[in-house]
Amino acid sequence: MELNQTYTHEFQYSQEQVNTYAQLTGDTNPVHLNAEFAATTVFKRPIIHGMFSVGVFTMILGTKFGEGNIYLKQNFEFLRPMFVDTLYHAKITVVEIIEKKKHARIETIIYDATTKKQTVRGEAWLQFP
Amino acid sequence: MELNQTYTHEFQYSQEQVNTYAQLTGDTNPVHLNAEFAATTVFKRPIIHGMFSVGVFTMILGTKFGEGNIYLKQNFEFLRPMFVDTLYHAKITVVEIIEKKKHARIETIIYDATTKKQTVRGEAWLQFP
Repeated sequence: MELNQTYTHEFQYSQEQVNTYAQLTGDTNPVHLNAEFAATTVFKRPIIHGMFSVGVFTMILGTKFGEGNIYLKQNFEFLRPMFVDTLYHAKITVVEIIEKKKHARIETIIYDATTKKQTVRGEAWLQFP
Repeated sequence: MELNQTYTHEFQYSQEQVNTYAQLTGDTNPVHLNAEFAATTVFKRPIIHGMFSVGVFTMILGTKFGEGNIYLKQNFEFLRPMFVDTLYHAKITVVEIIEKKKHARIETIIYDATTKKQTVRGEAWLQFP
């Protein structure tokens, strides 16, 4: 883990994956699952669960970023709705390392790969080995 | 939505559900999936992805707590590891309502149903209709 280190991952989710997340957590709110219902909301079409979208960070931090890190904290702002079959980039940046405590603060951002507009912004704290 | 309103949900996850979350997000870190590997870590047995455990709040806030809420923010501290086939309670409490902005701040806690020890502590901000 090094200061200013970054990692970017391109991803998209299908409606089927959103349905699986809904089943898994029990969050079957129709705004995520039902195109007809979603059309009546401000979003106009089904949106990905915010909490599902940020699963990309547990993937990056848990598999691309060394072994044995412990997830201490995470915060998120959900800035814009996210949609299925849409390309996003998840980018993490190591912004602070506290060697004494073995803690790292990591900026966690998702943005639309096309418009570059941020959809999620937040920070993770990890304890490294 | 009323000040001091609470909702508690009892839940547990199976190893199969953890495996599904791992597949869905790509976080296949063996600490979540492989009992032999997990035995070599400080946790001794497989732990649930922190980010999966907090999916319980999107379920509560998205299906038990009225329709049309928009998830604005969430923060979490992961205080203790969580294990499969273990009963937990997820409890939310409305701690602040800002009528002018239609925002609500909601305490989000998970604790072990047996020991009562907290495993996750955080806050959500919702915009209500």
